[in-house]
Amino acid sequence: MSLIPTPGFTGSPLVRIDIERDNQDYFDQAVSSLSARLLRLDGLKPVLEPDGSLSWGSLAEADPDVDLALLGLIDGKPRFVALAPVDMRQDQRMGTINGAMAMTEPGAPATYAAARSLVDWHNRHRFCANCGQRTTVRRSGWARFCLKDAGGCGAEHFPRTDPVVIMLAEYGDKVLVGRNKNTMQGKFYSALAGFLEVGESIEDAVARELFEEAGVIVTEVRYLTSQPWPIPSQLMIGCVAKVESNVVTLDTNELNDAIWVDRDQVRAALAGEPDALFTMRYPLAIAHTLLQAWANGA
Amino acid sequence: MSLIPTPGFTGSPLVRIDIERDNQDYFDQAVSSLSARLLRLDGLKPVLEPDGSLSWGSLAEADPDVDLALLGLIDGKPRFVALAPVDMRQDQRMGTINGAMAMTEPGAPATYAAARSLVDWHNRHRFCANCGQRTTVRRSGWARFCLKDAGGCGAEHFPRTDPVVIMLAEYGDKVLVGRNKNTMQGKFYSALAGFLEVGESIEDAVARELFEEAGVIVTEVRYLTSQPWPIPSQLMIGCVAKVESNVVTLDTNELNDAIWVDRDQVRAALAGEPDALFTMRYPLAIAHTLLQAWANGA
Repeated sequence: MSLIPTPGFTGSPLVRIDIERDNQDYFDQAVSSLSARLLRLDGLKPVLEPDGSLSWGSLAEADPDVDLALLGLIDGKPRFVALAPVDMRQDQRMGTINGAMAMTEPGAPATYAAARSLVDWHNRHRFCANCGQRTTVRRSGWARFCLKDAGGCGAEHFPRTDPVVIMLAEYGDKVLVGRNKNTMQGKFYSALAGFLEVGESIEDAVARELFEEAGVIVTEVRYLTSQPWPIPSQLMIGCVAKVESNVVTLDTNELNDAIWVDRDQVRAALAGEPDALFTMRYPLAIAHTLLQAWANGA
Repeated sequence: MSLIPTPGFTGSPLVRIDIERDNQDYFDQAVSSLSARLLRLDGLKPVLEPDGSLSWGSLAEADPDVDLALLGLIDGKPRFVALAPVDMRQDQRMGTINGAMAMTEPGAPATYAAARSLVDWHNRHRFCANCGQRTTVRRSGWARFCLKDAGGCGAEHFPRTDPVVIMLAEYGDKVLVGRNKNTMQGKFYSALAGFLEVGESIEDAVARELFEEAGVIVTEVRYLTSQPWPIPSQLMIGCVAKVESNVVTLDTNELNDAIWVDRDQVRAALAGEPDALFTMRYPLAIAHTLLQAWANGA
């Protein structure tokens, strides 16, 4: 058995039919199929059935003025989401996390994650970044084109996924967990993380972030696992990085504390023991998976 | 020694000083520093010194109407690039690859990759995707804000990096390499690859792409290494994926052939032997690194 647990927001049963996305006939047939299903969302938040499964309705529930995206097939049935306007002033974040934690169906958080990221991207990318014109939904909901025959520049825009490295610095038999500067009380600690930048490999980004945030020098990076994080659309890339020394210089713009913890302390935190040295949030987050994997010996 | 060679476009000596990017005083001091250096570019193509090192000039060479980006520090000196308009109708692609291959300085392709991706991103993202207004360079050249006091919506935009999975399907002691459908002659084969989508982990994307392009079912994914690919700004994530069967069903929209090759055949191809079964392009590309690593036993 693998030492690495399955991360949250993975394992969707969705079959993405990328090859048909440019095929308008395929899309039209899927829309008119009696088996077509619409993922119900409340803004960006999931809607669940009483048994904790995702709630699917008929396409008739969608506003006819709103574009649909074809997510793919589940159980052979076409699955859509409506690219509806969303009120971003509402708290979509905790609704997303709490909703995903309440899901009981295997793979449901991953299916929802794809839909949520797609709807959110369309909401915030209705105009062409190249020329400022309004863009048009294409590729069965998986792109927006700046159409030349509508006065645009011809640029094609695709949903964005931002890679983030998230890592445990490892020295001897301990790893480093940090507390966000905005966490003034409580024992919430997690793996350090940061956005990967243009011109960087995963290994480059892990080394830069650990040096910037904790002043430690990385000698070796090992990748463990990854997950999509749908708020709004990150790719979380989970690593362990051996470092030269356990002397930490905190970037106080990011963190207000960081501690070295051993495997027993990690196990106690993951188990939520009342006297654990620290506490973890969000079991769906890959920080959990990383710490569990490391405690398992990965 | 590691079985995995260092991928191209990695190992830049650039120290990115992310922590100072919002500090206008720091930026202004760097601009007025006597040691400040400007990376010379020809459009998006690199300019090299006769010895194959990157060519750096003084900031006086930059058009005063063009924004500068502070890449970071090399040898303690502030390093800038001009966010100048680029004629995208010219062939920037082969100039990039040939220029990078001609670099003799360790890490130079990686420094250039960061600058190229940044300049290219600004060129194609001068407007706000959320509201269509013109945006303004901020964060020392590492962001564009849609300023409310200039009539904008307040959205903040950051350079984009698109994760791509690139992988060798592995069955027994052979791996699968494919030939692009546009390659009608010659023996150019490479690893299969595709963009990671919203709602996917690396492992999800590897399995989906191999199933879509070759009809093979993945049972296990092992990550090997990664690189930035600066045309325009991908993160290439290199993996080997064990598959259930060696029966391939090609997606002829993408590939016109795929072959299973063993370690000796890979070594012959990497060495450019005239009777090798296939030929590789671009030693800087991670497909090379992956095949070399696999031939080494990784």
